[in-house]
Parts: sequence; structure tokens; C-alpha cells
Amino acid sequence: DFDYALENDVKPAFGRSDESLNRFLTRGMIVWGPEVTQIVEEGSLLADTVKNPENSGFRSAVLAGAPKTGKTSLAAQIAKSSDFPFVKVISPEDTVGFSESAKCMALKKAFEDAKRSKLSVLLIDNLERLIDYHPVGPRYSNLVIQALLVLLNSPPPAGHRLLVLATSSDRSFLRDMGLMDVFGSVIDIPKLSTADQMMNVIQESNIYSDDQLPLIEHKLRSFVEGKMWVIL
Amino acid sequence: DFDYALENDVKPAFGRSDESLNRFLTRGMIVWGPEVTQIVEEGSLLADTVKNPENSGFRSAVLAGAPKTGKTSLAAQIAKSSDFPFVKVISPEDTVGFSESAKCMALKKAFEDAKRSKLSVLLIDNLERLIDYHPVGPRYSNLVIQALLVLLNSPPPAGHRLLVLATSSDRSFLRDMGLMDVFGSVIDIPKLSTADQMMNVIQESNIYSDDQLPLIEHKLRSFVEGKMWVIL
Amino acid sequence: DFDYALENDVKPAFGRSDESLNRFLTRGMIVWGPEVTQIVEEGSLLADTVKNPENSGFRSAVLAGAPKTGKTSLAAQIAKSSDFPFVKVISPEDTVGFSESAKCMALKKAFEDAKRSKLSVLLIDNLERLIDYHPVGPRYSNLVIQALLVLLNSPPPAGHRLLVLATSSDRSFLRDMGLMDVFGSVIDIPKLSTADQMMNVIQESNIYSDDQLPLIEHKLRSFVEGKMWVIL
Amino acid sequence: DFDYALENDVKPAFGRSDESLNRFLTRGMIVWGPEVTQIVEEGSLLADTVKNPENSGFRSAVLAGAPKTGKTSLAAQIAKSSDFPFVKVISPEDTVGFSESAKCMALKKAFEDAKRSKLSVLLIDNLERLIDYHPVGPRYSNLVIQALLVLLNSPPPAGHRLLVLATSSDRSFLRDMGLMDVFGSVIDIPKLSTADQMMNVIQESNIYSDDQLPLIEHKLRSFVEGKMWVIL
Amino acid sequence: DFDYALENDVKPAFGRSDESLNRFLTRGMIVWGPEVTQIVEEGSLLADTVKNPENSGFRSAVLAGAPKTGKTSLAAQIAKSSDFPFVKVISPEDTVGFSESAKCMALKKAFEDAKRSKLSVLLIDNLERLIDYHPVGPRYSNLVIQALLVLLNSPPPAGHRLLVLATSSDRSFLRDMGLMDVFGSVIDIPKLSTADQMMNVIQESNIYSDDQLPLIEHKLRSFVEGKMWVIL
Amino acid sequence: DFDYALENDVKPAFGRSDESLNRFLTRGMIVWGPEVTQIVEEGSLLADTVKNPENSGFRSAVLAGAPKTGKTSLAAQIAKSSDFPFVKVISPEDTVGFSESAKCMALKKAFEDAKRSKLSVLLIDNLERLIDYHPVGPRYSNLVIQALLVLLNSPPPAGHRLLVLATSSDRSFLRDMGLMDVFGSVIDIPKLSTADQMMNVIQESNIYSDDQLPLIEHKLRSFVEGKMWVIL
Ligand SMILES: Nc1ncnc2c1ncn2[C@@H]1O[C@H](COP(=O)(O)OP(=O)(O)OP(=O)(O)O)[C@@H](O)[C@H]1O
Ligand SMILES: Nc1ncnc2c1ncn2[C@@H]1O[C@H](COP(=O)(O)OP(=O)(O)OP(=O)(O)O)[C@@H](O)[C@H]1O
Ligand SMILES: Nc1ncnc2c1ncn2[C@@H]1O[C@H](COP(=O)(O)OP(=O)(O)OP(=O)(O)O)[C@@H](O)[C@H]1O
Ligand SMILES: Nc1ncnc2c1ncn2[C@@H]1O[C@H](COP(=O)(O)OP(=O)(O)OP(=O)(O)O)[C@@H](O)[C@H]1O
Ligand SMILES: Nc1ncnc2c1ncn2[C@@H]1O[C@H](COP(=O)(O)OP(=O)(O)OP(=O)(O)O)[C@@H](O)[C@H]1O
Ligand SMILES: Nc1ncnc2c1ncn2[C@@H]1O[C@H](COP(=O)(O)OP(=O)(O)OP(=O)(O)O)[C@@H](O)[C@H]1O
Ligand SMILES: [Mg+2]
Ligand SMILES: [Mg+2]
Ligand SMILES: [Mg+2]
Ligand SMILES: [Mg+2]
Ligand SMILES: [Mg+2]
Ligand SMILES: [Mg+2]
Repeated sequence: DFDYALENDVKPAFGRSDESLNRFLTRGMIVWGPEVTQIVEEGSLLADTVKNPENSGFRSAVLAGAPKTGKTSLAAQIAKSSDFPFVKVISPEDTVGFSESAKCMALKKAFEDAKRSKLSVLLIDNLERLIDYHPVGPRYSNLVIQALLVLLNSPPPAGHRLLVLATSSDRSFLRDMGLMDVFGSVIDIPKLSTADQMMNVIQESNIYSDDQLPLIEHKLRSFVEGKMWVIL
Repeated sequence: DFDYALENDVKPAFGRSDESLNRFLTRGMIVWGPEVTQIVEEGSLLADTVKNPENSGFRSAVLAGAPKTGKTSLAAQIAKSSDFPFVKVISPEDTVGFSESAKCMALKKAFEDAKRSKLSVLLIDNLERLIDYHPVGPRYSNLVIQALLVLLNSPPPAGHRLLVLATSSDRSFLRDMGLMDVFGSVIDIPKLSTADQMMNVIQESNIYSDDQLPLIEHKLRSFVEGKMWVIL
Repeated sequence: DFDYALENDVKPAFGRSDESLNRFLTRGMIVWGPEVTQIVEEGSLLADTVKNPENSGFRSAVLAGAPKTGKTSLAAQIAKSSDFPFVKVISPEDTVGFSESAKCMALKKAFEDAKRSKLSVLLIDNLERLIDYHPVGPRYSNLVIQALLVLLNSPPPAGHRLLVLATSSDRSFLRDMGLMDVFGSVIDIPKLSTADQMMNVIQESNIYSDDQLPLIEHKLRSFVEGKMWVIL
Repeated sequence: DFDYALENDVKPAFGRSDESLNRFLTRGMIVWGPEVTQIVEEGSLLADTVKNPENSGFRSAVLAGAPKTGKTSLAAQIAKSSDFPFVKVISPEDTVGFSESAKCMALKKAFEDAKRSKLSVLLIDNLERLIDYHPVGPRYSNLVIQALLVLLNSPPPAGHRLLVLATSSDRSFLRDMGLMDVFGSVIDIPKLSTADQMMNVIQESNIYSDDQLPLIEHKLRSFVEGKMWVIL
Repeated sequence: DFDYALENDVKPAFGRSDESLNRFLTRGMIVWGPEVTQIVEEGSLLADTVKNPENSGFRSAVLAGAPKTGKTSLAAQIAKSSDFPFVKVISPEDTVGFSESAKCMALKKAFEDAKRSKLSVLLIDNLERLIDYHPVGPRYSNLVIQALLVLLNSPPPAGHRLLVLATSSDRSFLRDMGLMDVFGSVIDIPKLSTADQMMNVIQESNIYSDDQLPLIEHKLRSFVEGKMWVIL
Repeated sequence: DFDYALENDVKPAFGRSDESLNRFLTRGMIVWGPEVTQIVEEGSLLADTVKNPENSGFRSAVLAGAPKTGKTSLAAQIAKSSDFPFVKVISPEDTVGFSESAKCMALKKAFEDAKRSKLSVLLIDNLERLIDYHPVGPRYSNLVIQALLVLLNSPPPAGHRLLVLATSSDRSFLRDMGLMDVFGSVIDIPKLSTADQMMNVIQESNIYSDDQLPLIEHKLRSFVEGKMWVIL
């Protein structure tokens, strides 16, 4: 029926596109350092490669980093900037308590929907949760991993173009589970670490008034440089 | 349908609110030491943070301590003091003998109900029982843990505010099962340990008449100080 | 529906009370030594504590000892002497071949029935069989243990009083399976060990005629004292 | 319904009695040595004990020995000689490919049927097969073992008498699987080992004509005594 | 119903007899050495024993050897030569993808069908596949092994005669899985190893013309003797 | 029914033949070195052997090599060049999320369909995915492996000819999973390694214009020879 759909030019089941991405971008994107720009550009380049008719039209990347470093936001930002007409998100929130095979089916359907459109981006958020990974054992859903391995390895039909973006914890998880080589590229997401970076976030988020900022900055720098007594 | 409910202002399925908390508070709260006040205040602060429109409106905390130290009572007390209009309790008593997926669904529904209200507190009592943890093996329900990890990581929709309080045995369990970083904060619940603390409980609970108290106190102090022969 | 039942004063499903206990007491109770009296008195005390309106009205104890030492008879005796209007027995014979979840449900129902009455005693015979314990592996039903842990930890509603008596093999099993602290108290059931104790049983059970007794006693004493040649 | 049946004197579902035992006794019983007589007498004694109204009316024994030593035939012989009106056989051939719970139910039903009669013998042939035991792992059906442990431990109702005979491989299996103390007694079945014993079998089974026997005996004795060259 | 069938002389469901064996014998049987004759004769002897009314009428043997050594062909040859009226084959090809219990049922039915006839041979091809054996783990179907152990141990009813022939890889597999003593005898199937044996196969299979044979033989002998350069 | 189909000359369910192969051959086949020609010729030889009426008409081979080395393309190329009227492809994409038994059935059906035709080629792409192999554990579907072992070992009926081509990662996987001896031959697929080979691919794929090629070649050679600074 998939082939049938392709031949008869069945309209792709349009994702909630911008809407589905916006839920990850409510706070806006603060450029707290050149790292942020660089990551978004790397994503932009990937999107261009997918669009370029001289290329195979199929790329995948995984954004890997510590918890709460902005992996999901950045992936959503890249997906949004790509301006592809079809956007599909697979988020663990949508599959809570699903059986292994129900997850496989959701995953399969997402890829099929994405491939039905001429130019699609598919965002697979939080690989650990998707495969029900838990380090005690370890336990994981082999069925879902197998589906992932197959789907990430099968390009869309000729003339159709697909960018797959995934998020995950750091590289060691990907390596342990044999998922490292499955993605075309791995984009590392760094933590905020310097006082400058933190000040950028504080300034842009408008939490403090302008006259509070110098004191905040002073305390923050002292703290990061180990002079903790300043804060006390 | 969740989105639909939000948009059409469907009334949240009101929890049995006070009623559901009161079953944990039948004995009243005895302030046997400053620790008790401190814990309740810490909870109060959390509730205020959630209410504060300048914050993200989503916080979670786990009360961890030895058996019968008052974890559940204290969590219930905090929930009650918060005066949030919607209160939901997930207690192991309600899910005895549930299958893994039935537990997941109960958990999912509790979060959905809580998020449907503007200001909610969700009390998840006894994490060990919720995930069917048993140290021989060890055995646990990975499906329930996965659901917990996802749900504790997904904030309510904009304008909705949620405080999640959980109880659990001590930190080593949380650490072993990878649940430590899942909660925004861990509140340690201490045991009664000094004779003063115990006397506070004895006095306030009116078990003994006033003229019995001096002897009780004498025996108790001797016991705690290791002079066990006094009791004989 | 449980709450409904409580509020509308639904009659508890009366257990077969005396009838259900009598099947464990067909032989009568021989007091072969002060140990027997002591155990029954300990049980009597527990029953009084449960009845006492000044207490919480919820107590549990496990009788632990070697095979065939009388654990079940003694538990039944205590339950009978308590003279509580509602008696419920959970015996492995009633759940042979039950699935794990069927056992959980039977357990849950027993507790619910018991809590529906104002004053109940619940006898859980043979914990090893209830949880399908086998030392090779070891194997056990985690689902049933979880149910047990929850049910033994949730008091009856206000004004209702419940005594739970369980039997089990010795303390090492309870310790290994993490069931030691689940019961309010552990009552050790000793083996018959001295010739006096054995003679008490022989005399009271009327197996031998009075003139046979001196010879029996002589042989028995010699045997217990290691003079085995006397018997030959 | 069991109680109902007892009270209303429902006729026991009569086993195929002699018929069911005869399939194990087609060859007749050759008394190749005093061991055989002794085993049958030991069984006879057990049957008498069960019949004796002064006793509890419930005994169980397991016949343990190497493959093809005659365990099943001897158990059948004992059952037949007991002359009990009700005989029930549980043989692995009847439960080939049964699920664990189907086996439990068959076992439970066999015991119930047996207990419904006033005087019954129940023959459980081949415990290893009944519990699906395989040494690689090891694997076994815990569900069936649990049923066995319960059923072998619950006496028939007052006035009803039951002898349970089981067969199994040697004591090490019983010990490893914790089944040793479950039976009231263990009867070891020896192998044929001396030339005299073997000659008894050969003579009584009429395989050779009388004039062939001396040569056979000569060869056999030489072989057993290690003088193998005689046979060549 | 089996007993019923026997008594009422229900016709056995006739196997496809010769037809079912012929699929293993399409190439004919080349006697490449005395080993082949010897194996077929050993089988012939077994068949005679089964036919002999003085014997028990029940024998089983397993042909064990390396892959492609002719185990299945030889077993089929023996079955065919036996000239028994009823022939039944259980081949892994017929049970591909069957569940464990479906395999058990197929096995059980094959034995029942075979026992319904007066004189039957049952060929169980490829024990490893029948029990789903895989060395990584190892994994195997305990349910099928249990069925096999029971069925191979239960003789046909009086007057009915049955020869069971099985094939399997070498003795180490049989030993590891505890299947060694289950068969009455183990017949080792050797590999072709000498140049003479190989030349016999080559000549009889008519692959080469008569004038090619001397050169082939020269090369083959050199190869087997380690003079590999001759072939180059 | 299979036999029925054969006898009644039922038309084979024709595979999408060329169509099904073409999806693996969209880019054309670049002969980047004699290795490519050699592999295709090896496949050609295999196809000829299958066609040759003097042979058994049943061959299988597995193409093994690192990811993205062209295993699937080369297998498809060989299948296409063979010019067999019936072509069937089993690709992991078609069985994403299938249960173990559904995979078995798909596999079985593919073989049956292929054997129904006089001259067939069956391409089994990606054995790892087919058997749901994952190195952590390791985990795999024993049911599918068993089916594979049986089906790869059972020749088509007389007069029917079948070539089975499979692809898989390198030999270590095949060896570990005991699949090495299951295929008639293993064809190793090499990686591109020399600058010459890479230049062949670049030239034939027309990515760069002719005047760009010398610079590309210079850089590539320097890179392969370790002079990385040239590229910078
Ligand atoms: N560059 C940024 N500018 C503004 N807000 C940001 C930025 N990066 C992250 N955030 C905010 O920080 C929070 C965490 O970000 P996000 O959920 O994307 O991180 P994550 O790495 O995916 O987290 P998790 O490990 O939980 O999946 C979000 O509220 C997000 O809006
Ligand atoms: N501060 C307190 N004042 C009065 N009663 C208290 C106090 N703390 C605990 N209790 C009482 O002690 C008992 C145990 O308390 P609670 O159930 O809250 O402890 P817990 O740590 O949750 O126990 P568990 O480990 O079984 O979950 C309850 O009856 C409770 O009412
Ligand atoms: N004090 C006693 N007086 C008379 N009979 C007794 C006494 N103690 C035990 N018995 C008898 O001994 C037998 C075993 O007792 P019971 O079943 O209570 O022991 P148990 O420890 O529960 O055994 P098990 O380990 O099998 O559960 C019963 O027949 C019981 O009637
Ligand atoms: N004392 C005996 N007299 C005559 N025949 C005997 C005797 N003992 C055993 N047999 C015969 O030997 C065979 C094996 O006996 P039986 O099946 O009782 O042994 P078993 O120990 O139960 O074997 P298994 O280990 O297979 O269960 C049967 O045919 C039986 O009739
Ligand atoms: N003695 C023989 N004469 C002629 N052909 C033979 C002989 N032995 C084996 N073959 C042929 O060799 C091939 C393999 O034989 P067969 O299938 O019987 O071996 P096997 O040991 O059962 O193999 P497997 O290990 O795959 O089960 C078949 O085609 C068979 O016809
Ligand atoms: N010789 C070749 N000429 C042209 N293109 C080739 C050649 N070999 C491989 N390719 C191309 O390289 C890509 C990978 O090839 P293919 O999928 O056949 O490799 P594979 O080894 O099967 O990969 P996988 O490990 O993912 O299964 C495909 O796009 C294919 O068209
Ligand atoms: Mg994220
Ligand atoms: Mg608690
Ligand atoms: Mg007992
Ligand atoms: Mg036997
Ligand atoms: Mg074979
Ligand atoms: Mg491939």
C-alpha cells in the first residue's frame, strides 16, 4: 500500500509541523556562546545536503549530551530552520507505557509518513526512552532497536528526501548499545561551563533587572573561579 | 484528546483532594524537633516556587528515609499545606496486583489529570512498590520506570503548574536504580534518635498521664544513653 | 467500591470462621512444655493490643519454625482464642496452580474482606508456598511479594481492627527474601527436643496404654541421651 | 464444591483401578533377590499404616533408583497388593506437551479424586518428567513443584485415607530440587548386580531352554567376575 | 480415545510410507566402503529384533555423525529395508516456525499413529532442529525434550511393535543434552576419509567418463596424502 | 498443499523480480577494481552451477563484509545477472516489528514460493536484522535461526533449482552464531582501501568536473598516504 500511495500521489499525513516543534521552543533560543551557533549551522548544513539534488537525499544525525543541555531544543531549532514542509516528531511522551511492538509500529509509521512527503524532517527525541533502556541488567527493547537499525538504514524512495534528527545521552550509551555507527553523524552538545556563557543566559532571559546584573556577574565569576566565599 | 480537553477547558477530574490526603494524616503531625518544621518548610518553599509565575511551574522532589520515619505523612502534610486546588495521590494500595502496563496507565492518567488543572500537586507514594522492586535478582518493572522517567521529565502545558512529591526508601535505592537525578530535589527524612525527640512524641500523643511522664523520661534517657540496666 | 461498602455499612462476607480454623485443630492442642503456653499467650497479647481502642488496631506477626513443628496449629489456636468475629484463612491448598495474578487477587480480596469487619483476624498460612518460592534459582513470585508488602503495610480504615498471623519456615528464609521487617513481630516455634517434652505428647495423645508408658519412657530417654543400644 | 461433594457423599470418579496398574505389570514380578521381597513388604507396611484407624491415614513414599531398575513396576505392585478400592495413576505419558498450569490442574484433580474416596492410593510416576526437569540450566516447572509441595502436605479430610507413591531417579535429584523431605519415606531401588540375581531373572523369564542355562550361567558369572575372555 | 481406537481396531492413519522415505533416497545408496554395509546391517538387525515376537517389540536408535555424512539417507534406507507396513517421518522441514507446544503435539501424534499400527517404524530426523537447539546460551526447547524423553520411554501396547530411528549430530551434543541414554543404541556415521572411499563414490555416481577416472584418481590420492601441488 | 501445488503445476507467485532488485541498483555498479568483477563472476559461476542439470540444483552463498561496502548491491547484481525467471527478496525493511513467528512464516513462504518455480534466486538481505541480533546479551531470535537452518538445508524438489544469496556483516558474526557452515560458500566483500580504487569511484560517479579531478586526486593520494597537511 505504500508503493500504491507513492504512485497515486496520496497526500502525506501532514504532521503538526511547526506546532509539534514549538512545544520544544517556548523559551526561545539563547545564543550563550559560539557553540550554539556552530551546532545550529552544522544542522543547517545537513539540511542543505538533504535538499541538494546531487546528493542521496538521506541523512541522519544524533545530538548527544548531558541531561538538560538543550539537546531537544537544538534539534527542534534545526528542524524548524530547515523549513522542510513535512515535520514529524517522535517523543517518548507520546508512547508512555506502549508495548515493544506498539513502539515499533509507531516508529515505522513515522518513517513511512515522512518518506511519503518529498522533503521531510523526522525528530526522534530521547533514544534511551524509545528503547526502554535501563542500566540495571541492562534492559532494553531489542525489538525497537532492530526496527531503528533497519529504518535508519533504508533511504526514502527516489525523489524523496529525508533528514532524521535524534537526541540521546552521551556517546558512551550510543557506543554500548551499538548505535554509534547507525547515525551519519554525532553532534556533541556541550554544557554551559564558563561564567561568560552563564551571564549570556542570565542577561537574555531577563530574570534580573539591569542594575542587579553587575553583582550577579561578580558573584558568578567568583563562584566559577572557586572563590566561593564571595557568595556567602 | 488531551490537547482537545485543554483547549475546550474541560474540567479536570477532581481528585478526592483533602479526603485522599487525610487518610495519611489521621494522627496529626507531631513536631518532635526542628527537623520536622524544616522539612515542611522546604516543601512549602517548593510549592511557592511552583506557584510563582516567574518560574517554569514544574518541580519534583522525593522524600527519602528509613521505614516508618514519616515520609508519607510529611509528603501529605506538604501537599495539604500547599493549598493547591487539585490533589492526586498514587498509592501502592490502589495498584496491588496490577500488571506492569496497568501500572503505567494509572501513572500516565494521574499525570494527565494533574496537568489538566491549573495548579496541582501529585503525590507518588512508595516508589519501590510502584516499580515492583525486589532486591533478590534484583527485579523491577522496567516499563514502569521508563514511564516514570518520561513523565517526570515532561512539564505541564504553558500556564499550568505542577508539583510532584514522591516517597522512597533511602538514597542508595534511588542511586542504584538511576532515579537520583530524576527528581529536582531529594529531601532526607531522619529517624527519631535522641531522647528529647522521643519525649516530644510521647508527650504530644497523650499515651501516658502526666504523673507517669517523669519515670518514662528517666527510663528512656537511660536507654538511649546505653544504661540499659535501669529499665530492667 | 470498597469505600462505598464501608460507608453504606455493607455486611462483610463472613469467613467460615471457626469452621475454617478447625481443620487445623482436629487433634487438639497438647501443651508439651511451657513454650507452647508462652506462644499462645504471646498471641493472646497481640489480639488484646489489636482490640485495645488506644492502639492503632493493626498488628501482624509471623510464626517461624522448622517443618511440622506446629506453626499452623498454633496460629490457628491463637486466631481461635482471640474470639474475633471475623476469621479469614489463606491457605496454599486453596490456591494450588493459581497464576501469580490470581494469587494476588485472592490475597487482596482476603485483606479487603477482613478490613470490612470491625474486628478481624487473617491467617496467611505458609508464605513460601504463597510466593511460589524455590531455592534453585532462586525463584519466587515478585508480584505476590509486592502485594504482600503493600497489604501488610496498609492499616484498616479508622475504627476497624485487624490482626494478621502468618506462618513460614525459619528466619533465614524471611531474611533472604526481605520479609523480616514486614511483620510487626516474629514468633519462633521450637522443635520438640527433650525426652520430657516428647513424653508429654505421648501421654496426652493416648497412643499407648498406661502400663506401656514406663518402658516407652525408658527407651525414649536413652535414645535422647544418646544410649541408642537400649532400643535395639 | 469439593466440600459439597464430601458432604453429599458424591461417588468418587473411579479410577481405571486395576486396569491402570496392569499396564505396568504385564511381565509379572520376578523376585530376583530378597531385595524385591523387602521393597514390596515395605510398601505393604505403608499400606497397612494408612488403613490403620489409629493413624493419621496419610502417608507418602518415593521409590528412587537408576533407570529401568523396576521403580514403576514395584510401585504398581505395591499399589495393587494394597487392595485399596480407589487407584489413580499420574503418568508422564498422559501429560506430554501439557502446559505448566495444565499439569498442575491434572495433579490437583488426581489428589481431589483420590481424597473423595475413603481409601485410595495415588501413583505419581516419574517426578522428573512431571516437573519438566532438565539438568542444562537447570530448568524445571516451579509451578508444578509448588503444587506438589502443597498437595503432598495436605492430608485427606477426616475419615478418608490416602497413600501416595511416587517414582524418581536417585536421591541426588530429590535432594537438589528440595523434594527429599516432602515424602514421608524414600525407598531405594537397587540395580541387579550379582550373577545370582541375573540368573534368577533369566530362569524365571523362560527365555532360554533348560539345557542352555548352565552355559549361560557360566558365561554370566565369568563376566560379572571380570573374566570377560570366557564370553569371547 | 487412543484406547478406544485400539479396541475398535481403527485403521492407522497410514503414513505416506515409501513416498515419505523416497525423498531422502533420490540419489540411491552408494556403498563406498564396508562401513555403509555394516550400518545398514546393524539397522536390519534392529528391525528383526522388533519383529521377533520373543522380544519386547520396542527399540530405538540414533544415527550420529558430522553434517552431510549421510545420516538421514542411511536412516531412510534402514527404514525402507525393514519393510514395515507403517512408516512415519518427522522432519524439521515440516515443523518450521512451529511453537514449542505445536512441535510437542506433532511429535505426540506421530508416536500415537505409529503405535496404532501393528508394525511401525518412526524416523525422527535431525534432533537438534526438533528441539530448537542453539549453542549460544545454550537455548533449546525444554518442552520438546520432555516430550521426547517420555515418548521414547513408553512402549507400544501389547502386540504392537515399533522401531524409532533418529538422526543427530555427533555424540557430544547428545551427551550435553542428556539424550545419550534415551536411545537404545547410538550408531556412529563416519565421514568419507580415504581416497579409496572417495573413488568409489566418484565411480558409482557417473560424474566423470571412464577415461577421466585415472587422472581424477591420481589427483585425489595425491591430495589426500598431502601432495597438494599435484592438483595445481 | 505444497505437494498439491507442485503436482497441479500451480503458477508460482511471481516475485516483483527485476523491480524488487532494482531498488538496490539505482546507482549502477561501479567497477572500482578487479575485486568487483571477481565477486560478480564468482556469483555468475554459482548461478551456472545451479542451472547445470548435472548438479544438485541447490546452492547457497553469503556475502560478508563491513557496513556500506556494497554487499546488498553486489548480491542484487549477481541475482539480476543470473537471469533466473523467479526472483524473491527478503529484506529487513519488509519485516520491521514482526514477531519472531511472523518472521519465520515470511521466511518459510519465501522459500516455498521460490521452490515452486523451476529456476529461482532468493536474496536474503541482512541476516543480523532478520534474526534480531544484538550483541548486548547477546540477543537473537532462536526461532528464526532454527527456521533458517532448516530451510537452507532442504533442497527444492527434483527438477527445481534454487540459488540462495544472503548478506551479513563479517565472518566473526557468522562464526559466533554458528551460521558459518550453513551456507555453501562465504564471499568476502572488501572495503575500498587504495587511492586508485577511490579515484575510480569518483570518476565514474561524475560528481566532479574533469578539470577538478587532478586536484582531487592529488589530495586523495596525499591523504591515503598519510600526508594530511596537503588537504588543509
Ligand atoms: N540555548 C537555549 N536557549 C534557551 N533555552 C534553552 C537553551 N537550551 C536549553 N534551554 C532550555 O533548557 C531546558 C532544557 O532544554 P532541553 O529539554 O532542550 O534539554 P535536553 O538536553 O533535551 O534535556 P533532557 O536531557 O531532559 O532531554 C528547556 O526548558 C529549554 O527551553
Ligand atoms: N511527625 C509525626 N507526627 C505524628 N505521627 C507521625 C509522625 N511521623 C510519622 N507518624 C506516624 O507514624 C506512622 C508511620 O508514618 P508514615 O506512614 O508516614 O511513615 P513512612 O516513612 O511513610 O512509612 P513507610 O516506610 O511504611 O512508608 C504513621 O502512623 C504516622 O501517622
Ligand atoms: N501442640 C500440639 N498438640 C497437638 N498436635 C500438634 C501440636 N503441634 C503440632 N501438632 C500436630 O502436628 C502436625 C503438624 O502440625 P502443623 O501442621 O501445625 O505444623 P506446621 O509447622 O505448620 O507444619 P508444616 O511445616 O508442614 O507447615 C499436625 O497434625 C498437628 O495437629
Ligand atoms: N522384578 C521384575 N520382574 C519382572 N520384570 C521387571 C522387574 N523389574 C523390572 N521389570 C521390567 O523391566 C522393565 C523396566 O521396569 P520399570 O519400567 O518398572 O523400571 P523403571 O525403573 O520404572 O524404569 P524407568 O527408569 O524407565 O522409569 C519393565 O519392562 C518391567 O516389566
Ligand atoms: N551412501 C550414499 N550414497 C549416495 N548418496 C549419499 C550417500 N550418503 C549421502 N549421500 C548423499 O549426500 C547428501 C547428504 O546426505 P544426507 O542428507 O543423508 O546426510 P546427513 O548426514 O543427514 O546431512 P545433514 O547433516 O545435513 O542432516 C544427500 O544428497 C545424499 O543423497
Ligand atoms: N560498486 C558500486 N558501485 C556503485 N555504487 C555502489 C557500489 N557499491 C556500493 N554502492 C553504493 O553504496 C551504497 C551502499 O551499498 P550497499 O547498500 O549495497 O552496501 P551494504 O554493504 O549492503 O550496506 P549495509 O552494510 O548497510 O547493508 C549504496 O548506495 C550503493 O548503491
Ligand atoms: Mg531532551
Ligand atoms: Mg510510606
Ligand atoms: Mg503449616
Ligand atoms: Mg518408571
Ligand atoms: Mg540429515
Ligand atoms: Mg546491505
